[in-house]
Amino acid sequence: MTGLLWPGDHRAGELFSDAAVIRAMLSVETAWLAALAESGAAPPGAAVDIEAAVRIEPEEIDAAAEAGGNPVIPFLAVVRDRLAVAHPEAARWVHRGLTSQDTLDTAIVLAARACTDAVLASIDAQVAALVGLAEQHRSSVMAGRTLTQHAVPITFGLKAAQWLHGILDARDDLRDARDRLPVQLGGAAGTLAGPSLILHLTGADRDAVAVAQSAAEHLGLPWSPPWHTTRAPITRIADAFTRATDAWGRVARDVLVLSRPEIGELAEPVEAGRGGSSTMPHKVNPVLSVLIRRASLVAPGLAAQLHVAAAESVDERADGAWHGEWATLATLARHTVTAASQTAELFTGLHVDTGRMARLVSASGSNLLAEQRSLAGFVGAADDDFDPTHYLGSADAIIDTILDRARSGGSR
Amino acid sequence: MTGLLWPGDHRAGELFSDAAVIRAMLSVETAWLAALAESGAAPPGAAVDIEAAVRIEPEEIDAAAEAGGNPVIPFLAVVRDRLAVAHPEAARWVHRGLTSQDTLDTAIVLAARACTDAVLASIDAQVAALVGLAEQHRSSVMAGRTLTQHAVPITFGLKAAQWLHGILDARDDLRDARDRLPVQLGGAAGTLAGPSLILHLTGADRDAVAVAQSAAEHLGLPWSPPWHTTRAPITRIADAFTRATDAWGRVARDVLVLSRPEIGELAEPVEAGRGGSSTMPHKVNPVLSVLIRRASLVAPGLAAQLHVAAAESVDERADGAWHGEWATLATLARHTVTAASQTAELFTGLHVDTGRMARLVSASGSNLLAEQRSLAGFVGAADDDFDPTHYLGSADAIIDTILDRARSGGSR
Amino acid sequence: MTGLLWPGDHRAGELFSDAAVIRAMLSVETAWLAALAESGAAPPGAAVDIEAAVRIEPEEIDAAAEAGGNPVIPFLAVVRDRLAVAHPEAARWVHRGLTSQDTLDTAIVLAARACTDAVLASIDAQVAALVGLAEQHRSSVMAGRTLTQHAVPITFGLKAAQWLHGILDARDDLRDARDRLPVQLGGAAGTLAGPSLILHLTGADRDAVAVAQSAAEHLGLPWSPPWHTTRAPITRIADAFTRATDAWGRVARDVLVLSRPEIGELAEPVEAGRGGSSTMPHKVNPVLSVLIRRASLVAPGLAAQLHVAAAESVDERADGAWHGEWATLATLARHTVTAASQTAELFTGLHVDTGRMARLVSASGSNLLAEQRSLAGFVGAADDDFDPTHYLGSADAIIDTILDRARSGGSR
Amino acid sequence: MTGLLWPGDHRAGELFSDAAVIRAMLSVETAWLAALAESGAAPPGAAVDIEAAVRIEPEEIDAAAEAGGNPVIPFLAVVRDRLAVAHPEAARWVHRGLTSQDTLDTAIVLAARACTDAVLASIDAQVAALVGLAEQHRSSVMAGRTLTQHAVPITFGLKAAQWLHGILDARDDLRDARDRLPVQLGGAAGTLAGPSLILHLTGADRDAVAVAQSAAEHLGLPWSPPWHTTRAPITRIADAFTRATDAWGRVARDVLVLSRPEIGELAEPVEAGRGGSSTMPHKVNPVLSVLIRRASLVAPGLAAQLHVAAAESVDERADGAWHGEWATLATLARHTVTAASQTAELFTGLHVDTGRMARLVSASGSNLLAEQRSLAGFVGAADDDFDPTHYLGSADAIIDTILDRARSGGSR
Repeated sequence: MTGLLWPGDHRAGELFSDAAVIRAMLSVETAWLAALAESGAAPPGAAVDIEAAVRIEPEEIDAAAEAGGNPVIPFLAVVRDRLAVAHPEAARWVHRGLTSQDTLDTAIVLAARACTDAVLASIDAQVAALVGLAEQHRSSVMAGRTLTQHAVPITFGLKAAQWLHGILDARDDLRDARDRLPVQLGGAAGTLAGPSLILHLTGADRDAVAVAQSAAEHLGLPWSPPWHTTRAPITRIADAFTRATDAWGRVARDVLVLSRPEIGELAEPVEAGRGGSSTMPHKVNPVLSVLIRRASLVAPGLAAQLHVAAAESVDERADGAWHGEWATLATLARHTVTAASQTAELFTGLHVDTGRMARLVSASGSNLLAEQRSLAGFVGAADDDFDPTHYLGSADAIIDTILDRARSGGSR
Repeated sequence: MTGLLWPGDHRAGELFSDAAVIRAMLSVETAWLAALAESGAAPPGAAVDIEAAVRIEPEEIDAAAEAGGNPVIPFLAVVRDRLAVAHPEAARWVHRGLTSQDTLDTAIVLAARACTDAVLASIDAQVAALVGLAEQHRSSVMAGRTLTQHAVPITFGLKAAQWLHGILDARDDLRDARDRLPVQLGGAAGTLAGPSLILHLTGADRDAVAVAQSAAEHLGLPWSPPWHTTRAPITRIADAFTRATDAWGRVARDVLVLSRPEIGELAEPVEAGRGGSSTMPHKVNPVLSVLIRRASLVAPGLAAQLHVAAAESVDERADGAWHGEWATLATLARHTVTAASQTAELFTGLHVDTGRMARLVSASGSNLLAEQRSLAGFVGAADDDFDPTHYLGSADAIIDTILDRARSGGSR
Repeated sequence: MTGLLWPGDHRAGELFSDAAVIRAMLSVETAWLAALAESGAAPPGAAVDIEAAVRIEPEEIDAAAEAGGNPVIPFLAVVRDRLAVAHPEAARWVHRGLTSQDTLDTAIVLAARACTDAVLASIDAQVAALVGLAEQHRSSVMAGRTLTQHAVPITFGLKAAQWLHGILDARDDLRDARDRLPVQLGGAAGTLAGPSLILHLTGADRDAVAVAQSAAEHLGLPWSPPWHTTRAPITRIADAFTRATDAWGRVARDVLVLSRPEIGELAEPVEAGRGGSSTMPHKVNPVLSVLIRRASLVAPGLAAQLHVAAAESVDERADGAWHGEWATLATLARHTVTAASQTAELFTGLHVDTGRMARLVSASGSNLLAEQRSLAGFVGAADDDFDPTHYLGSADAIIDTILDRARSGGSR
Repeated sequence: MTGLLWPGDHRAGELFSDAAVIRAMLSVETAWLAALAESGAAPPGAAVDIEAAVRIEPEEIDAAAEAGGNPVIPFLAVVRDRLAVAHPEAARWVHRGLTSQDTLDTAIVLAARACTDAVLASIDAQVAALVGLAEQHRSSVMAGRTLTQHAVPITFGLKAAQWLHGILDARDDLRDARDRLPVQLGGAAGTLAGPSLILHLTGADRDAVAVAQSAAEHLGLPWSPPWHTTRAPITRIADAFTRATDAWGRVARDVLVLSRPEIGELAEPVEAGRGGSSTMPHKVNPVLSVLIRRASLVAPGLAAQLHVAAAESVDERADGAWHGEWATLATLARHTVTAASQTAELFTGLHVDTGRMARLVSASGSNLLAEQRSLAGFVGAADDDFDPTHYLGSADAIIDTILDRARSGGSR
């Protein structure tokens, strides 16, 4: 979590920070204690809100995490120690029946879900801004470009709608992946043998799956069969993050091209101090797009790491693949949150120079109508309407289709 | 498409081969001609089934594809030439109003869909086999292993169910991605300006979107706004392929571990000649698992390439990103088909040595019950049932949950 | 090996094709027979040039390669069969003492080396062309661009020299990696136990390492300790290929930007038929750059696959990682050869519009001199020489440094 | 820089931390001031050791880094402010003639070099330990394993030598890449126009290249033509890091297999508290290998990101590709340092159970000699020496070759 080498990272605040993961681990243990107490296995006094009762700094755990290969063992030692005096029953019962991976996977799910929610909120703002741009610029004719060269006319409204189209796709995927992030509660090897034994020996009348489902409810997460080495929940959210950065990266590339001084059709929103150079006072760099694009170039490699980890998930707990997931997903999630926020800001104040668009169309005119001439010649009709602003085909209908999708809440 | 350096590739047959892509391009042009004729723009005689009428060898196109950067231009030259005598109106009308990317993207969608169907068929066989294994071995106790070491007992039925769990996740994703592979019909810059002009000048009474939707129907594909530089359909299917190879790769890793001679709990199905060595006649190598695992190590890098391409989709047609997608997706799709088939075969004849499992449990016994002893001591109960076959917690219930999902058709 | 989905692939001809790998395998077995005969272990009649004597089509091996997981077993069956009548002693002695991986790894090394040689030849042409461009345009002033915006003036000669700088780096790496591609001759588990036994039992007076070194000499490859699961030779050449595509990709991105119609400073070499559009007759697309850039976007994912394979090289032969290398490296090598050739062609005929460069400098003038004004103000000197063609600092000296490196043969 | 989600990260200490990068930026500015003063352009009083004079916390810069897209602008504001009173001439002259990328690239080079040095120190320890293991276990016979199955005998000494072989390869690459990490000093667009102007206007008698070379000397870095968009130095060191993690990952995979309880030939060094489980007191997990392997699965994706960035290095400063490098390289470098240290520790105390190796050889005996029998039959000799400890071929000679390389300092 550094803003020095990933400028803009502060936009992700404490999301998926070490501190956030610790808080999420505390939530998981709290939910488990509550469920154990509800079942009658643990005494009522064990059902303590540990998140409220205990405060742990990452530094207390960091180095100690290496010995066990994960942070849960030192985390629990601190938790038990802090609870010992005021909440001895919670200290005694915390984590009983669980395994490290239960706590850490569920905490990571909670952290990833919080990031996804932040991304979806930014996407709502993006969608609203793009709906506005698509409508406002429905008739703003500009050159369509293919393989860098002028092709036929489009409108900027269509371009904005296409950006929106990609972002709605990403929103679908993010929502789906978010809702399928499940609790992980399986015990040492995914059988819930530990909780089952505890329930049996204490004469509790619930089975372990019911207790796990109750803990899941406390956390607001769907229950699932344990997935210690069945990692689709992780790759699904990682792919969704990456599809989102894909969608924004494509926009950033467009803005970076179209704000080159020789083109000048778009300009980033101006904010005091942004885009400056350390040596050239006149320069206004398209910094938001530069930083958004950066994320889109980095995300695919991060997602690939998570797929390799999923494929390497051997046995009932993987021998290294699992351990590579945590930091990778945290980095990917935070980068996605940051890029989402930057993209929303980019859209909100984007400057569209319709005059410049029109001048470039005019300068390129006969090229932009070459297809029209060719097709008119083909049909053999006397076409006398050679005007780029009239050669826009179904642009309006396509815009409307995409706007309808956006307005219907984005379901496909 | 080589079997020499990717043994087993013949399992993918002609799927997504060059020849298959050419046939798919012929289908696309056929559907477009039909739709143009239905609209009244093209004469009825133009509505020729080109796929039946024309045969093109990849070698006729290959080298010529470089000049235009894609194979559609030389493809069309050959098509027009072949149609000229017998079907002059089709020769005249073929591809009118479309752009190269329309033809190639839709052909690639068709090829990817055919691969997905083949994968889904193999998955059906996998699911059937795993349902059988999970039921048959519901009580086959074996050591659960975490971080390579013995943890607590599981059953092989649970392991098979967990494999199934991952494969059902992949099936969901594949089905979803398959059904969202849309037609690409947008014209030079995604406005359908060309088709609109043709319809206008010929006095046809349909609009271009309706004609595109009609062509989509001919191809059995959903219509979508043009997505020339909005590439979620490609990354979605690529991610789904990769999530499938993840799910199989994890199984292969398990089989490779458990069929080591020192463990010997599983063995690949025996088939004459398979698994032999060029120098050691006694060896029976777990070749299917080796080859499945190979695919799972390679797929993430391929998917990452497609994400980079999506993020780089600038303008109305990308300047290189698009061009990198075709061969990458073809390779990924064929590898997935091959691995799907190999995995189905692996499951169908998998040899499970329950005696060996029991002996290893017995040898490891006290270790496998260490958690039980620790928890019993914690609860303070007099537990006298120290038997690994009884320390299985909710394994049965978890198996049933997964089997129910499989039987309900795999919807989550 | 398809030109349909990777236009330009024909430039790689038969390099690293299936047929080429088969020929290379024949060379390996020929060299081994020669070395065995020289040692006295095999009779003189066994020393047959199998590559000349035997012709094998890939189709004879493809499907059969799956059973053993690699193509060497069916390859040897065919070889022995073809040799049986005319060269019975060669048929009898071929491959004795080797393992499949020896034959295939060495064949792949030969194929990779041939590709590297082709790439290096293209690079020689690139270097020659760039040396010319750097000298010719030493004084062609153009806008320097940072973060897409105009910064300070540069010369096109400096830009060409910078392209050259990157390509000389890649040449160093390619030469180094090429010369470190060793023979693989280790026997079943890398001990040379089989050859040692044969030499011992036949009373030959050489040891197995000497025989392996002799075979290496026949192949023109350096000897190395066996590296069956020590894969640096593969990743080193893969990284070198990727650093080459990086260097060209960066050039392609520059050309794609600078040949946009609004900028127009560069244009690709014109060749009849190239760059055309299927629908827009006027368009001349920068197809070479598009296709070069494509390779640079795809190569990193391929190299990453090979690194994952290297890291997963367990035991004395890896259980899947090795198998994923072959096709991946072949694809990467062929793409690199193709891109090398395209880049050489791009440089040779690149059109540089110095007039356009000067006009853009003139239009941008005061911006391009903002740094100069700022620094002059800082120093407090009366600078009256505000002319972009004079604000070029050490551009000439830097060009000379890079040209010197090129002329000295590219050693750093 | 988190130990919570990357256990063991504390081993990298402050290397390539935000604070370290800030210190490195201070070094760069210090060297530049010194060189400016030496040239006579700046007054002697400007040559202040800013690293000693100024202390900056990352938090002072983080959020402000976004506005300019990189941390140098806010960094300089703080530096100037801190210097203003005590060192007004340094405050006035700091950074004059440079561009942000000069400062940040050179700082990153310094941080990467420090990491490389730490890695190389760990490798020295690894090499020493492996030389010992290879010699000590030259005659410790164990089963050679290919595709997970027993093949022919090897010795553990040979395995250790093979591990060493890979690590010596990595050491070569790391040394080479380290020595080729150059200073970056080019000014706004790589022409050194700013420094040249300053030198000219102040009547200094050096040219800008000489001043840059002098600054490079102060930093102990080689000079190079500016490489703002010629990124081989970055990818070269990234590839070298990855080749190192490849080499260690392969070892970790071996240890993870061979320390499975059913095999038990190796065990990780025991240290109090390491390898424990949160629920199973008996377990001793091979935590070092798990964590080393983790790094080797993650590194290839990080290196791929850096190659994509290199390929996307357009213009005279890239529009996002550059910005994605910093955090990616920092993560890769720190992970490599951590894995290097863990691997050295793994080797130093590795427990080798030669008795277990011998028992497994004995149990597998006839299989391990199948090749020998087959070859003896082929030669037709009466071989009566069927003893696995005698079927080791050139293992000793191969060990010696590798040990010689290690002792000669690792040059190839």
